[in-house]
Amino acid sequence: MGDSMYRDDMCALFKRLWPISRSITGKGVRQSLDIIGQVIPIEKLEFPSGSSCYDWTVPNEWNIECAYVKDSKGRVLIDFHDNNLHVVSYSVPVNKTVSRDELMKHLNTRPDLPDAIPYRTSYYTEDWGFCIEHNRLSEFVDDHYEVVIDSTLQKGSLTIGEGYIRGSSEEEIFLSCYMCHPSMANNELSGPVVMAAVCDELRKRPLRRFSYRYIFCPETIGSIVYLSKYHERMRQRVRAGIAIQMLGIDHNLIFRKTRQGNTIADRAVLNVLSRRQPDATLMDWSPMGGGDQRQYTSLGINLPVVLLCRALNGSYPEYHTSKDNLDIISMDRTEEAVSIILEIIDTIEGNAVFENLMPYCEPQLGKRGLYPNTGGTLASDITRHYIHLLGWSDGKADLIDISNKSGYSVVSLRKAADTLCEHDLLGLVERDVD
Amino acid sequence: MGDSMYRDDMCALFKRLWPISRSITGKGVRQSLDIIGQVIPIEKLEFPSGSSCYDWTVPNEWNIECAYVKDSKGRVLIDFHDNNLHVVSYSVPVNKTVSRDELMKHLNTRPDLPDAIPYRTSYYTEDWGFCIEHNRLSEFVDDHYEVVIDSTLQKGSLTIGEGYIRGSSEEEIFLSCYMCHPSMANNELSGPVVMAAVCDELRKRPLRRFSYRYIFCPETIGSIVYLSKYHERMRQRVRAGIAIQMLGIDHNLIFRKTRQGNTIADRAVLNVLSRRQPDATLMDWSPMGGGDQRQYTSLGINLPVVLLCRALNGSYPEYHTSKDNLDIISMDRTEEAVSIILEIIDTIEGNAVFENLMPYCEPQLGKRGLYPNTGGTLASDITRHYIHLLGWSDGKADLIDISNKSGYSVVSLRKAADTLCEHDLLGLVERDVD
Amino acid sequence: MGDSMYRDDMCALFKRLWPISRSITGKGVRQSLDIIGQVIPIEKLEFPSGSSCYDWTVPNEWNIECAYVKDSKGRVLIDFHDNNLHVVSYSVPVNKTVSRDELMKHLNTRPDLPDAIPYRTSYYTEDWGFCIEHNRLSEFVDDHYEVVIDSTLQKGSLTIGEGYIRGSSEEEIFLSCYMCHPSMANNELSGPVVMAAVCDELRKRPLRRFSYRYIFCPETIGSIVYLSKYHERMRQRVRAGIAIQMLGIDHNLIFRKTRQGNTIADRAVLNVLSRRQPDATLMDWSPMGGGDQRQYTSLGINLPVVLLCRALNGSYPEYHTSKDNLDIISMDRTEEAVSIILEIIDTIEGNAVFENLMPYCEPQLGKRGLYPNTGGTLASDITRHYIHLLGWSDGKADLIDISNKSGYSVVSLRKAADTLCEHDLLGLVERDVD
Repeated sequence: MGDSMYRDDMCALFKRLWPISRSITGKGVRQSLDIIGQVIPIEKLEFPSGSSCYDWTVPNEWNIECAYVKDSKGRVLIDFHDNNLHVVSYSVPVNKTVSRDELMKHLNTRPDLPDAIPYRTSYYTEDWGFCIEHNRLSEFVDDHYEVVIDSTLQKGSLTIGEGYIRGSSEEEIFLSCYMCHPSMANNELSGPVVMAAVCDELRKRPLRRFSYRYIFCPETIGSIVYLSKYHERMRQRVRAGIAIQMLGIDHNLIFRKTRQGNTIADRAVLNVLSRRQPDATLMDWSPMGGGDQRQYTSLGINLPVVLLCRALNGSYPEYHTSKDNLDIISMDRTEEAVSIILEIIDTIEGNAVFENLMPYCEPQLGKRGLYPNTGGTLASDITRHYIHLLGWSDGKADLIDISNKSGYSVVSLRKAADTLCEHDLLGLVERDVD
Repeated sequence: MGDSMYRDDMCALFKRLWPISRSITGKGVRQSLDIIGQVIPIEKLEFPSGSSCYDWTVPNEWNIECAYVKDSKGRVLIDFHDNNLHVVSYSVPVNKTVSRDELMKHLNTRPDLPDAIPYRTSYYTEDWGFCIEHNRLSEFVDDHYEVVIDSTLQKGSLTIGEGYIRGSSEEEIFLSCYMCHPSMANNELSGPVVMAAVCDELRKRPLRRFSYRYIFCPETIGSIVYLSKYHERMRQRVRAGIAIQMLGIDHNLIFRKTRQGNTIADRAVLNVLSRRQPDATLMDWSPMGGGDQRQYTSLGINLPVVLLCRALNGSYPEYHTSKDNLDIISMDRTEEAVSIILEIIDTIEGNAVFENLMPYCEPQLGKRGLYPNTGGTLASDITRHYIHLLGWSDGKADLIDISNKSGYSVVSLRKAADTLCEHDLLGLVERDVD
Repeated sequence: MGDSMYRDDMCALFKRLWPISRSITGKGVRQSLDIIGQVIPIEKLEFPSGSSCYDWTVPNEWNIECAYVKDSKGRVLIDFHDNNLHVVSYSVPVNKTVSRDELMKHLNTRPDLPDAIPYRTSYYTEDWGFCIEHNRLSEFVDDHYEVVIDSTLQKGSLTIGEGYIRGSSEEEIFLSCYMCHPSMANNELSGPVVMAAVCDELRKRPLRRFSYRYIFCPETIGSIVYLSKYHERMRQRVRAGIAIQMLGIDHNLIFRKTRQGNTIADRAVLNVLSRRQPDATLMDWSPMGGGDQRQYTSLGINLPVVLLCRALNGSYPEYHTSKDNLDIISMDRTEEAVSIILEIIDTIEGNAVFENLMPYCEPQLGKRGLYPNTGGTLASDITRHYIHLLGWSDGKADLIDISNKSGYSVVSLRKAADTLCEHDLLGLVERDVD
């Protein structure tokens, strides 16, 4: 990724990941992780089929080579190689001739979106099926069809990609995106692409206060199996987390809070959005439609993980169809997501509590060279930073509070606070971490 | 009353109660209770004149046979039998010839509403008077008039109608409406009519959690004398109460909270109105204009009784005049009031606290047949019920909370919760009652 | 000042104070205090140059006789006697010929407001300078200029004017305005003029509950030196304070809260503004731009002092220039400020907590002559006062609370409460003072 511009690299990543057939297990996931692993360090964690994780069990590993439906004249009506959405994910192997009636029971279409191929799965019930454009049903006039799905569903493992960037503290900021869908762009490639750009930027920076852990996992079952193994460590270390998904379309950000609603993660996001995107949609926590945030914030887990996205399940017409392709991706919006997520992280990093060491009336800034000599003019921006910091720093308010009050970013307030510390006007309390 | 439709029966009740001359005591009240007693069980409680009740004393009983004013030619200018509003309620007996000047001192009109007969009372000061249309003052051209009021004001009793529907608990839901006005429709007959329909429906239902007590009492003095006798029992048993009045005109509901503002009564009403009538007027508690709610929620009494109505004192032009007649009653609105009050009661009945028994990540609903086998489609309504219940049931949130968050009614959530209980995914905590 | 009308007297005061050359020290301040001292009692407090006050030091006393700039033909281009804004406040003595280049370094203009003389100061850095209209720079065509500033900057003292009106309690209401600017009208003469009218009215009234202390001080350094000497006494006695400034222009009031935001001062202001000026601007506390409120509410001082004004620093175009003159003053607005400040003070004076002595249902007001004999009409204003007082007086709510609920002023509620006390229906708890 470029040092200051992630755009070209993100474009390239979108294009390389696009054609791969992914599901919640299998070679497609590992192949995708290998590609992302060329951008940021990733270790593959493998969880064997049959492993128990809370109320769930890791399913068998599914892989597919090809699949097609031919009519009685041998004409190929559906071909997996044309579009990997054509096959219901986790379809068991099939090789037989079926009647039109039976075929129809296994064909999924979207009558409301007749030229789109829907996306369907059957992870936990053994079945097979195809998905096609509703418009094309009229092509199926024969009485019998040859149906082939050359797939395997057997013991193997579920794969999660994980990376770690060490900071000065063991406390972690946790980033998660899911990666288990075949060729769809906003949901889901925008998640892994944005996450790769964010993490690439983070690892290039000088030593930071927090350590960072990021995972690419299959949705739902992936975060559940990860939590079942690492929940205790996460409970101890994760100070803030962001679940990242559906960030590529031209829509303002949607932010869903943690269950508590006032963790440092929530406060940092609200603070940054109030300046960067005041029209963003702010949602209280809800158990509906939050991707893996649902697992991270389930009652017994309850980690401080927020959700950032530009769409919820079904909130844009192309959702879960072949129309969710690279054409609906806005690179401006994708880049904006990276930039805002980085500022959220910088806000958590820079946040601290200070105490005014000269609290009786204002200190005389002028004699320290921190105030203009000539009076009568309006206060400059830097002077306003000083006055806000001195006025609010009661040993309890943190920089996020002061940013909310003053409108200045935590990053710029932190610089000014460090100057005031050098002049012994402020002292660092840093009550908010450790 | 009909099983599924209260409308015709309410119409009939309006018409039968309409002509009766009621006041805060007397035969008119008892006659009205007899009519309502044909619909729902009612016992008459009699409180003797002179009984002390807090700062008040039960007044003498007032009854009236007839009353008229004749001019010197013997022409009847005012006749009680034309409209029982013509006589000031509690007028002492009169039988004499008076000068025009003296008569005028005893005539009440509404110059701002010149073709309406105003409603006036003199319960606690011995006096007599007539009420007529302001327009008709010009007919009084003679020098002298014969004035007759054939009334009695003597020891007797004040009558309150009370009914009780036993539930499985002694805890009560208390319903109150006042009945002490002569022929006026919205204020007041709509109150007793709606109450009769609600109670008739409640007593036909299978055994319920709460017991129900309902009273029809004269306004102010009635609720005061009732409280002075039964306050301690009410303090122990009344879990929620609704004061019902002025529900017949074509206006959205007005809801006034209890003094505390967050009792189960308040929460149930707010919850139901948020779905059934989001444009309803929500008012914080106030000591002004709340009918008998004023007494139930006075400082020393402070019962959890809310007010439901469609008008406040004076908020519609026909208020307290002969124009408040059956023509201004909307049977759609009257019926809507019954239906909403019943849903409020069902909400209190159905409310409970549950606890998610499998709180680590989501449980796998699919293997229990509670989730569709094919993935990729949007969650159905019933699935959403399950996910909300599991997500919010932390052993503290009750179904009203979850209804407020999810938008689903307490009644439908309760059904889904019972299903999850059968699958051992939820457990009933029921912290909120007993 | 007139008994019922302050307007003429305020006009006269504006005009007498206008021409005087004031700064943070010097004869101009004392002369201004002498003029105000003819309206209300004022004692001059003198704080010697060099006195230490928290982080600051009282500067030398500055006085100026005359100042001018002449060109090489002896033509006077700038003359202090034309407008005392022409000289930078605290300019050191100068008497020399300077090149055009050097002169230009000492000339201040406002290019954005080319026909206005800006106001500039150099209190804490020894320097000299002139201020002129930007338009006039073109007149400076000569190579050399004679520059004379006949000022003195030497040991002396800083002067604060203070007055005291004794009430029945030692608890104080504190009023503060600053007086240190040369000829500018809204900022600042409107402050001292409004304060004089308010204090003149207060001292004419009968004995009050609170004592009143008011000061006229140079901005910032004045309140700092005053606090450094009297902070402990103020901490013990000041129950509420108002910093008064910039009240003369035609703009709604701006109210800035104390740091706590809910002191009796805040509550009284909010209560009065909600009725008198609902469109006023309400601001939470902030350390920016609050005149002397900044010092009174600094972290270590934290007195309950609110800010009332009609403008903030720089919020009107004439701010800190020669255009802030008497032409932009609205006497209607100046008078309104006096009237609202007096009602705020009356609200604090009249506020108290009562307890309903007959809390079981409503007391029967009629038998005490407090309720009309004829029923059926709407409640009158005075009846509503009684009902609100009885309904809300739980021994905790004070009259400001009841005013906020009922919409009636504290002053009129207090009168009604006193009547109810005479009838033993209310008892004074007065928990809110002492």
